[in-house]
Amino acid sequence: MARHQHRVRVEALAAQMALSAAEVKHLQVMRVRPGDTVQVFDGRGAAGEAELTHLDPFAATLRLLSRTETSSEYPQPVTLAIALLKGDKLSDVVRAGTELGVAHFQLLQTRYADVPDIGDNKLTRLRRIAEEAAKQSQRSVVPEIASPVPLAQFRSEGQLFYAHPGSPARLLDHLTWLSPLTLISGPEGGFSPEDLGWLGHAGAVPVTLGPRILRAETAPLALLGALAASGV
Amino acid sequence: MARHQHRVRVEALAAQMALSAAEVKHLQVMRVRPGDTVQVFDGRGAAGEAELTHLDPFAATLRLLSRTETSSEYPQPVTLAIALLKGDKLSDVVRAGTELGVAHFQLLQTRYADVPDIGDNKLTRLRRIAEEAAKQSQRSVVPEIASPVPLAQFRSEGQLFYAHPGSPARLLDHLTWLSPLTLISGPEGGFSPEDLGWLGHAGAVPVTLGPRILRAETAPLALLGALAASGV
Repeated sequence: MARHQHRVRVEALAAQMALSAAEVKHLQVMRVRPGDTVQVFDGRGAAGEAELTHLDPFAATLRLLSRTETSSEYPQPVTLAIALLKGDKLSDVVRAGTELGVAHFQLLQTRYADVPDIGDNKLTRLRRIAEEAAKQSQRSVVPEIASPVPLAQFRSEGQLFYAHPGSPARLLDHLTWLSPLTLISGPEGGFSPEDLGWLGHAGAVPVTLGPRILRAETAPLALLGALAASGV
Repeated sequence: MARHQHRVRVEALAAQMALSAAEVKHLQVMRVRPGDTVQVFDGRGAAGEAELTHLDPFAATLRLLSRTETSSEYPQPVTLAIALLKGDKLSDVVRAGTELGVAHFQLLQTRYADVPDIGDNKLTRLRRIAEEAAKQSQRSVVPEIASPVPLAQFRSEGQLFYAHPGSPARLLDHLTWLSPLTLISGPEGGFSPEDLGWLGHAGAVPVTLGPRILRAETAPLALLGALAASGV
């Protein structure tokens, strides 16, 4: 058995599991050998331990040993709906947001957007970052990254919050874990009056992040940090 | 008067203020002209409004119009004592930590450090990042960045906390604003048993950041996010 158990993503947990080419490569690089035990997860919340029963350059087979009760997820799915940001900022938010337990990322087009849209390559890259970050933070859920929609067309269930300078309300005072949670995060230029009108109409609650000005990539991580530090 | 008020750092708030060469250049680049109003701050908590009375390529003079009550600081200074990290990770932590209200950064040498020490150039760069971030987040305090000391030689007053996986305690339940606050943050490899022994001896309280594994650069920002979201 390997000293440090490697984590391998599978299509679904089953008695016998074949691996994708990428995961076969990963096992080879990590020098995992038949007989070794690895951790498996399906990216949708199920995880377990499995034994590598066969490995050649093109294929690998695993045998499920046990299923694990996973407790690394919030009681309700957390969505981060975030405006498009320039450069690598979205990558940074997706990486840290995945560590901090986000289940869904919804990209948003807003009035004062830093960039109007996102290319397919960049979207693919964000999804890969989410998958890597989920592995590293030992989550069994790989967050999905939904293609951008205009803020006014974004529909969500449950509780909605957004950080708003000067708001007296605090996230943890208003949050319950009885329904899904969505945090909405604006672009560098902030929300436009129209955006704010829509947020109000949608019942989103403005919450404080203190009196300092935060960058667009810092604010959502601060809100997620507050959730994490609440120990849920 | 400029549409957006520029922020200028001065040696000390006074009726007449001369600017440093760097700030003179900054005003020129920003096309601020005599007669315009700017915001001034001294990096130690005092801030105000001033009128530019004279500007030439080598010198600028400001006249203080008013002092501002600054409320962008926590009731007690917050120190982030952080282990040395590889690459640009410390820069990212200093930038976001400054936005999130850190007053002092203390660099730490720990047993499992990612890097053994930090060069003068990098230290200078971190100080510049803190100054820029303080301006951008409209803080009047520029956090100081203290050269690395071994964890066991670090002395602090007030309350000490560190994030520890599996701890049942929550930062906001134990925190009071009656004395200075220090958050201690480990390296990628975590604290060694010796480090943990020292933390216990020093009275540091382990607090939760939830069941997920966070990178060394994400954990301190999550704790600071919890402070920010508490609205203090």
